[in-house]
Amino acid sequence: MKILLTGFEPFGGEPVNPALESVKLAKAPEGVELVKLEVPCLFEKCIQVVMDAVRREKPDAVLCVGQAGGRDKVTPERVAINVMDARIADNGGYKPSDVCIREDGPAAYFATLPVKAMTAAINEAGVPTALSNTAGTFCCNDVMYGVLHEITKEGLPVKAGFMHVPCIPEQLPRFKEGTPALPLEDIARAVEAALKAIAEN
Amino acid sequence: MKILLTGFEPFGGEPVNPALESVKLAKAPEGVELVKLEVPCLFEKCIQVVMDAVRREKPDAVLCVGQAGGRDKVTPERVAINVMDARIADNGGYKPSDVCIREDGPAAYFATLPVKAMTAAINEAGVPTALSNTAGTFCCNDVMYGVLHEITKEGLPVKAGFMHVPCIPEQLPRFKEGTPALPLEDIARAVEAALKAIAEN
Amino acid sequence: MKILLTGFEPFGGEPVNPALESVKLAKAPEGVELVKLEVPCLFEKCIQVVMDAVRREKPDAVLCVGQAGGRDKVTPERVAINVMDARIADNGGYKPSDVCIREDGPAAYFATLPVKAMTAAINEAGVPTALSNTAGTFCCNDVMYGVLHEITKEGLPVKAGFMHVPCIPEQLPRFKEGTPALPLEDIARAVEAALKAIAEN
Amino acid sequence: MKILLTGFEPFGGEPVNPALESVKLAKAPEGVELVKLEVPCLFEKCIQVVMDAVRREKPDAVLCVGQAGGRDKVTPERVAINVMDARIADNGGYKPSDVCIREDGPAAYFATLPVKAMTAAINEAGVPTALSNTAGTFCCNDVMYGVLHEITKEGLPVKAGFMHVPCIPEQLPRFKEGTPALPLEDIARAVEAALKAIAEN
Repeated sequence: MKILLTGFEPFGGEPVNPALESVKLAKAPEGVELVKLEVPCLFEKCIQVVMDAVRREKPDAVLCVGQAGGRDKVTPERVAINVMDARIADNGGYKPSDVCIREDGPAAYFATLPVKAMTAAINEAGVPTALSNTAGTFCCNDVMYGVLHEITKEGLPVKAGFMHVPCIPEQLPRFKEGTPALPLEDIARAVEAALKAIAEN
Repeated sequence: MKILLTGFEPFGGEPVNPALESVKLAKAPEGVELVKLEVPCLFEKCIQVVMDAVRREKPDAVLCVGQAGGRDKVTPERVAINVMDARIADNGGYKPSDVCIREDGPAAYFATLPVKAMTAAINEAGVPTALSNTAGTFCCNDVMYGVLHEITKEGLPVKAGFMHVPCIPEQLPRFKEGTPALPLEDIARAVEAALKAIAEN
Repeated sequence: MKILLTGFEPFGGEPVNPALESVKLAKAPEGVELVKLEVPCLFEKCIQVVMDAVRREKPDAVLCVGQAGGRDKVTPERVAINVMDARIADNGGYKPSDVCIREDGPAAYFATLPVKAMTAAINEAGVPTALSNTAGTFCCNDVMYGVLHEITKEGLPVKAGFMHVPCIPEQLPRFKEGTPALPLEDIARAVEAALKAIAEN
Repeated sequence: MKILLTGFEPFGGEPVNPALESVKLAKAPEGVELVKLEVPCLFEKCIQVVMDAVRREKPDAVLCVGQAGGRDKVTPERVAINVMDARIADNGGYKPSDVCIREDGPAAYFATLPVKAMTAAINEAGVPTALSNTAGTFCCNDVMYGVLHEITKEGLPVKAGFMHVPCIPEQLPRFKEGTPALPLEDIARAVEAALKAIAEN
């Protein structure tokens, strides 16, 4: 089994993105061939970069990972919605307000990855986790929606989905007091557990 | 302009539902004919009860209101998703796990009410508010998804959407320590502001 | 009965302080003579300003009110501690780190106001409230500790204490996403309920 | 250097207490002789059990550890206050309401451990942490206040203090939805970092 594992580059002025760092740290579970990819924090371009890799690498599944500052758990996402609605600009200065991702697309796509098995596996690995019902309306939701849309449109035999991860403690001095965090090693362990759940389900 | 305003009955063992109480208290804005309706906290049946009223009353818009224990703001909902996934049973003892609301339905519907204008109006009225990207996976999401689906399928000229409201202080002794709340008068004021925004947009 | 009711001026770059605004709005309960006072957000000076008024007005009780951005309830304070430890500078640019308020003072003073009766009265008035066990280590704690210390040292027959109040919705655009708020009218109602509880206990 | 490290037994119906488990897991930093102790979740008795060990073992410092369900960080405590005010009964069924710990004691004691160095060391170890200004009013505050009081009264050359730790993921199914957690290994690492900071300061 081949899995494409992607992590967003830093954004919002941060020097680091725990999503990308955990992707770098994560080891392939037994029997899984892992292809890793850094994704730019740019609306639309993030979709293209992942889809280029999907077409080139022909993985069985794609797991994209992004940071959700303020969350205290690793959260596989159930659904992505057809909207870009940003509070801050992406890394290219684009700050859309209530713009469709795909004019001809449906309102939403459910992840085709086994999100409950992933959550159970992360919990089993001892890392705090919960299933999330919103991936927001920034680049994380954008890449999840766009990749599921392109895969569906092209009829590719590829499962896809997204997972948000909390801040790591090193970031906290630059975040609002009280922001939760998880050590990077735990996040990497959660990513590995999610990959294992994908491979087994 | 005619608006159907609905509120869920109490659930989860609570003697009161701030959604229903605020619906009872809310006064019609000038120029709006208001029809009020209590909705049972029962999957599927809640959709039927609202749709019966829609067909009978032929309103221009439907605003359904429900409680979100744990939220600290009044939150118009952007989107409803095609899933029932309950942590507690509804008032009929039904506790679905990852069940479709409509087998033939799309993954999601966006509210057709002016959710950003509603949020702006509630804020203008001095009540804490924010736009929400998830209505959860319990009866609140069920009624929002089901009503939007039936209205779309039947091609009715009716705008529809949902709004979550926090607990009221009277409920807090029965909730977990630290649960936020808003006074009922504020919630009713928020409902009135939302109705006004619907009438004007 | 005469009560001195004080509210802090705005700080941290905010144009408004809901504590001061609620103090201005609050009406005296029947049988209570109310003296209102604006207090500068300056370590030490805030104590002197309140104590000058205490000596001049000879009230039976002093209730000081301040803002706690991030709290979602009105919270009477149980205790003040002998330390100044600031994350941001006060309005005079002073930013102490682990400095004693009174070298010769005890570690803490408990409020001499009836904090549980105050919390019960605020709840009765329909405003979300809870008793707090920490007034922080900024000017709010400073004024509470200092006033209780001076009253104790001088043997004055004056009850004293402090109450924190949340942000009001108008402030939220300048605060972090997700910050809770309460309408100003509710906060003023809570202040009135607290005054009534003080007068009756 | 000899440090007495204590952890509370489970309470509130929980089968496990992450404080005790992390104490069991923690290894002594180089140059530190570590004595470990399980403490009953009983008001007053917890003080006696720790003080018996203090008198018997004559440590240079005592670090007591307890669980704070709902917190998302490891939090050394700055201060303990002279009150028992319980929402739930202790393991002996005692549920005091506004009762003094020591009739002849001061309002509060500051920790005599280097709490800021401990927080810095835990942060350095990559575990989310913050200094806390309230240990609550249950057994955790009780043991911290009581031990500091007895040590002061007896004039013992022993530094003392308390540290709260979050839930571990295994506990979450029995806690309210949304409760944060940290893996046990991280908590144990935080305890070790705190011990190192105590030894070095």
